[in-house]
Amino acid sequence: MPGDSFGHSFRITTAGESHGPGNVVIIDGCPPGIPLAESDLTGDLARRRPGQSRIVTPRKEPDAPEILSGVFEGKTTGTSIAILIRNVDQRGRDYADIRDKYRPGHADYTYDAKYGRRDYRGGGRASARETSVRVAAGVVAKRIIASAFGGRVIGYVRQVGDVVAEVPDPAAVSPERVERLPDGAPNMVRCPDAARAAEMVALIDRVREARDSIGGVAEIVAVGVPPGLGEPVFDKLKADLAKALFSLPAVLGVEYGVGFGCAALRGSENNDLFRPAEGAAPPAGPRVVTGTNRHGGMLGGISSGMPIVLRAAVKPTSSLPREQATVTTGGGPTTIRTKGRHDPCLLPRFVPMAEAMVAIVLADHWLRWRAPAGPQDV
Amino acid sequence: MPGDSFGHSFRITTAGESHGPGNVVIIDGCPPGIPLAESDLTGDLARRRPGQSRIVTPRKEPDAPEILSGVFEGKTTGTSIAILIRNVDQRGRDYADIRDKYRPGHADYTYDAKYGRRDYRGGGRASARETSVRVAAGVVAKRIIASAFGGRVIGYVRQVGDVVAEVPDPAAVSPERVERLPDGAPNMVRCPDAARAAEMVALIDRVREARDSIGGVAEIVAVGVPPGLGEPVFDKLKADLAKALFSLPAVLGVEYGVGFGCAALRGSENNDLFRPAEGAAPPAGPRVVTGTNRHGGMLGGISSGMPIVLRAAVKPTSSLPREQATVTTGGGPTTIRTKGRHDPCLLPRFVPMAEAMVAIVLADHWLRWRAPAGPQDV
Amino acid sequence: MPGDSFGHSFRITTAGESHGPGNVVIIDGCPPGIPLAESDLTGDLARRRPGQSRIVTPRKEPDAPEILSGVFEGKTTGTSIAILIRNVDQRGRDYADIRDKYRPGHADYTYDAKYGRRDYRGGGRASARETSVRVAAGVVAKRIIASAFGGRVIGYVRQVGDVVAEVPDPAAVSPERVERLPDGAPNMVRCPDAARAAEMVALIDRVREARDSIGGVAEIVAVGVPPGLGEPVFDKLKADLAKALFSLPAVLGVEYGVGFGCAALRGSENNDLFRPAEGAAPPAGPRVVTGTNRHGGMLGGISSGMPIVLRAAVKPTSSLPREQATVTTGGGPTTIRTKGRHDPCLLPRFVPMAEAMVAIVLADHWLRWRAPAGPQDV
Amino acid sequence: MPGDSFGHSFRITTAGESHGPGNVVIIDGCPPGIPLAESDLTGDLARRRPGQSRIVTPRKEPDAPEILSGVFEGKTTGTSIAILIRNVDQRGRDYADIRDKYRPGHADYTYDAKYGRRDYRGGGRASARETSVRVAAGVVAKRIIASAFGGRVIGYVRQVGDVVAEVPDPAAVSPERVERLPDGAPNMVRCPDAARAAEMVALIDRVREARDSIGGVAEIVAVGVPPGLGEPVFDKLKADLAKALFSLPAVLGVEYGVGFGCAALRGSENNDLFRPAEGAAPPAGPRVVTGTNRHGGMLGGISSGMPIVLRAAVKPTSSLPREQATVTTGGGPTTIRTKGRHDPCLLPRFVPMAEAMVAIVLADHWLRWRAPAGPQDV
Repeated sequence: MPGDSFGHSFRITTAGESHGPGNVVIIDGCPPGIPLAESDLTGDLARRRPGQSRIVTPRKEPDAPEILSGVFEGKTTGTSIAILIRNVDQRGRDYADIRDKYRPGHADYTYDAKYGRRDYRGGGRASARETSVRVAAGVVAKRIIASAFGGRVIGYVRQVGDVVAEVPDPAAVSPERVERLPDGAPNMVRCPDAARAAEMVALIDRVREARDSIGGVAEIVAVGVPPGLGEPVFDKLKADLAKALFSLPAVLGVEYGVGFGCAALRGSENNDLFRPAEGAAPPAGPRVVTGTNRHGGMLGGISSGMPIVLRAAVKPTSSLPREQATVTTGGGPTTIRTKGRHDPCLLPRFVPMAEAMVAIVLADHWLRWRAPAGPQDV
Repeated sequence: MPGDSFGHSFRITTAGESHGPGNVVIIDGCPPGIPLAESDLTGDLARRRPGQSRIVTPRKEPDAPEILSGVFEGKTTGTSIAILIRNVDQRGRDYADIRDKYRPGHADYTYDAKYGRRDYRGGGRASARETSVRVAAGVVAKRIIASAFGGRVIGYVRQVGDVVAEVPDPAAVSPERVERLPDGAPNMVRCPDAARAAEMVALIDRVREARDSIGGVAEIVAVGVPPGLGEPVFDKLKADLAKALFSLPAVLGVEYGVGFGCAALRGSENNDLFRPAEGAAPPAGPRVVTGTNRHGGMLGGISSGMPIVLRAAVKPTSSLPREQATVTTGGGPTTIRTKGRHDPCLLPRFVPMAEAMVAIVLADHWLRWRAPAGPQDV
Repeated sequence: MPGDSFGHSFRITTAGESHGPGNVVIIDGCPPGIPLAESDLTGDLARRRPGQSRIVTPRKEPDAPEILSGVFEGKTTGTSIAILIRNVDQRGRDYADIRDKYRPGHADYTYDAKYGRRDYRGGGRASARETSVRVAAGVVAKRIIASAFGGRVIGYVRQVGDVVAEVPDPAAVSPERVERLPDGAPNMVRCPDAARAAEMVALIDRVREARDSIGGVAEIVAVGVPPGLGEPVFDKLKADLAKALFSLPAVLGVEYGVGFGCAALRGSENNDLFRPAEGAAPPAGPRVVTGTNRHGGMLGGISSGMPIVLRAAVKPTSSLPREQATVTTGGGPTTIRTKGRHDPCLLPRFVPMAEAMVAIVLADHWLRWRAPAGPQDV
Repeated sequence: MPGDSFGHSFRITTAGESHGPGNVVIIDGCPPGIPLAESDLTGDLARRRPGQSRIVTPRKEPDAPEILSGVFEGKTTGTSIAILIRNVDQRGRDYADIRDKYRPGHADYTYDAKYGRRDYRGGGRASARETSVRVAAGVVAKRIIASAFGGRVIGYVRQVGDVVAEVPDPAAVSPERVERLPDGAPNMVRCPDAARAAEMVALIDRVREARDSIGGVAEIVAVGVPPGLGEPVFDKLKADLAKALFSLPAVLGVEYGVGFGCAALRGSENNDLFRPAEGAAPPAGPRVVTGTNRHGGMLGGISSGMPIVLRAAVKPTSSLPREQATVTTGGGPTTIRTKGRHDPCLLPRFVPMAEAMVAIVLADHWLRWRAPAGPQDV
């Protein structure tokens, strides 16, 4: 059964592989009147793109998006938006060395088990190429939440290997700090703690030279989200956010707020106590805040109005430019050595993917909710 | 928009609150010919039920299920199955002390923000009462996966507070060891490491006496799952499993395989290398295994045939029999002290809930992949 | 794959058969704050119920609904509403005569072909019993559209056999005229043309005496629907209304506006010309009407603001108290004669079922739309 | 909420308008191993294309499809297939005459009411351009049902104006007869009754010369469909087929089998009596047929194994090259005269659209019922 759509009221459906003509997303449910042009998409696409710095894969992919529908005179029409990103033509390359082998840590074996066949030239749908159109859709989602409630999603790298950044207030991290170091140089690793950023880059350099790769943790923060987003049972906001992040390649863990740290806490330590907030009340009642945010902005699966703070663990790249033992598609033992140019660390390019997925979930839940919330609106 | 359904080919839809007449699940997509009676449901319901041991809440709820449809002459018909579990009648109780206050860590405030009103007598849909019918549906799912591919789901408690169990081989844990101690006494905390189980019980006892609560981690293992379950992009098996677990109350984190530990690993340490397996090949190709299982049984979001191993972090119960600061529904400061009987630790009762959700996802993905037309195919 | 849910933003999921314990509907997506009690459901349920007059089946089924969730202090909470209608206990009856035979015109054979087994005591899910809970859900939908935009759905019988009612202005038919004759007597056949109503009753009486049954056409009108409901491509309002009506038992045709009559018309005869309307404009522009309504209130699959007028053709009851040739479940020739008490004409009881389904579609599309329609709402 | 997807296990999602860069479909759920190339799509696209004969619009649209994903080495991979059909570039045309007017019978007014804005250069998503990619998806669906159960879908024109074709046995109509006259000339109107076909063409010629248009009825037949397709309640096969046909532009009515004719029949006249069939039995029981087919191949919403026979009423083209009264977008009275080249009769081009939608529903319900895991199962 199909699994290429995500979201309900704001829904994206994607198609495309790493080695086919291109990737497409159809965005369904975008409200009319949102300004949108192809040039709006290039910023986040450039953050995801290979070749953006020396610590990511040097492959060349221009990632030029074409909007095929749903926009008229510079604004969305309210009908479905299709965006196409063509792949660089790779005909003529030689795939003999990977055609009949299962790459460790990749989906080659599981695709064959599932479908009985696969495009052996690359990861197919499992390739990170597929996320390019998610990032494009994420730009649309970011515009919706900004316009709807002033919401903003910011991701950054929290950990690479054993280097863990200090981020005293996740809600205060600025996009500028994620993209630029204090001296104005590009923040290649997208870590807002400049000292740790330098250590992370040094670690990635060492790992690459060792023909190895390294894992890490990204943190994604959504600020300005009003209380009330999320459905009470299965479609809890935390559940849809977790699914969104786990749907990205290489993610092995997701947590929010205090996360796995809650296991060692007592209730009296973990509870965030409510107190009255200053400022305007939301439509349905008083404005309430908590002094701490161990609940990561969600209670009962519904946004509380506090910043939403999520973390995703990303495994080290499985493709390694060194010999690894594996099996052939016929079932016999062999070895494999990746020749393509791969990322020594996925985290810098993971950040815009994760931001996009979080923004898509927030746009979706906003549109699911603001279908009338009460009889006064009906 | 509605959020009370879960799954696609095997889908459950629930209704019911903590203080209404009862909870209902409609199970849609169960193949015909599966033996099913109300007595089949009582085992797992008893594991979830309050009052089962001294370390959980002593509330009395019989949780007697009634099958309203979809079963004829002791077997499923292939059409939708409705199961009703009535609540114990709670009319006449006095709710004045919680009616106008937001309980810390609960969904009271977020429900008011979302809906503008709520049933102040309890957690409404956010209550763990709602999970009773999920557990009933999980029994049906467990039967499907057992019958379809010999699959089995086992959960247990891995951590309570700072007590962490040793579980050398998650795939080897038996239901007996989870439910019974070596001496035959009930394993109240559902931890298969008997020594740690005793420590956990002692810790929970201390916490309860201190009018506090404590968090923990549950581990859920699925064995016998063939390679090929899961869809390649959004509906990755890991993504749907994570959503399933995050849809349960109190879950703050989910990981599989090496989980967050992957952040500190190098690719050469993290990759599980393939090797040929003995025994019969699956339909689509050779049978391949990995010597290690850091990938937790899923590659590219598709099951690899290795055991699926997940962990969920569960926060300490928010309701505490002690004074906590909070606000009134009018926005003013106040204090609250929970008088109801609550669990000092949610983990022992969380285990069957988590098993049910994992089994539901596996049954769903199996049917999405290889829909059977009749009992002969299941 | 499951097919027991209908609708998106307002969604119903049903379970239950003719001969099981009962039928259940879970209504998902009802806004909070709608007044609702069990007594509100009994009116339409009585219109659907067997035994209401001499021209329908004399079976006794009390159809007493129980609301199991989603209502607190007399109003909906915004969470899922479950309604249970128990069946009359039929244990002890003898089904030997139908157990091994396929009733002509029924789903017995197709169920066996699909599922490999069926509840031979009755129609199972194909029974009109299943529609009882749809009618209950329809009451909720009617409340939503009345509250949201003053919408109203009225159905009536337009044709029975060769007796065709005159209904000069469908939008002017009142519920009173459908339920009562001018002299105050019950309008058993639910035809607002009193003269034709008498002819229809006489025809049904003759048919019943002849141990036969008769078909007919129902007309359903929705008035007060604002322009803008419906989605432009697959979920056109006309498409969802047609699916809703075709999902009812015995419906062989659906048309709206001029319907099949359009085949013989020229464009210059068929086009309804726009003209300015008096009165307040809808939010998005001028208020425009058409002098004629051959388009039945929908253009491009979206409501135009004119009355929505649909017709459904309903076949004569297949169960006949006379000998009919058929086959056994083993494939051999036999004859069958229905002994149960069946309707000589389905139309009078069909009217509330059709109204319910139309109201459900309108409530759903309203809630799908009033998720923000434009950036000003976002 | 989005409405641009159709189907469940075989699902299509479309984007694109009449005057944008192009139309795209993402086909989700196609089994792996189906041979597919762009050249396979051109046959049915040519049948839908403008300019194919003198009785349809003479617009030039090449409709050249590009497969963007989901096909590798000439066969489907099992993952999502995207197909793009670019529009002819229409920049530079002058739309001043329709920009501020609502065309009668079109969706201009209802789009403005719904979205508050629209692409005034054409029908947007309401244009028949959108159906080009549905026809492409229909080719894939036809391959699935042919491969899975030898199913075949054939449509033809049954009526134009008052000319009604004689079709003694719908299941015996051959594609050749629909496309070619007995003398080998193209059957421009796609009516298998050659004498009536000539009359229809003459009528359409007259209507076009009179600057008018004419309606009609198409009949669509599916043969070779095994018993068991369709879900018992909301997703009855008849309900999904009706929705599919009503989702096409200009359809005002749908019926199957005896259709609206059932209203005047008695049960004893309408029932199709079962009798044993010769030949092999389906898996679940004996092979049973009916001597007549008033039930149009579906009982209880599930296919019976008899030919499925549907009819759709299609209104006359609303665009007329003559003055018609209407209103401006500002609400004032005006007149409009269509200058573009439109079809005097939609029926000849409607046939492949209807075939595509019927094939899509059948492929979907087959996969919902018996999902194959690989090409060997299809």
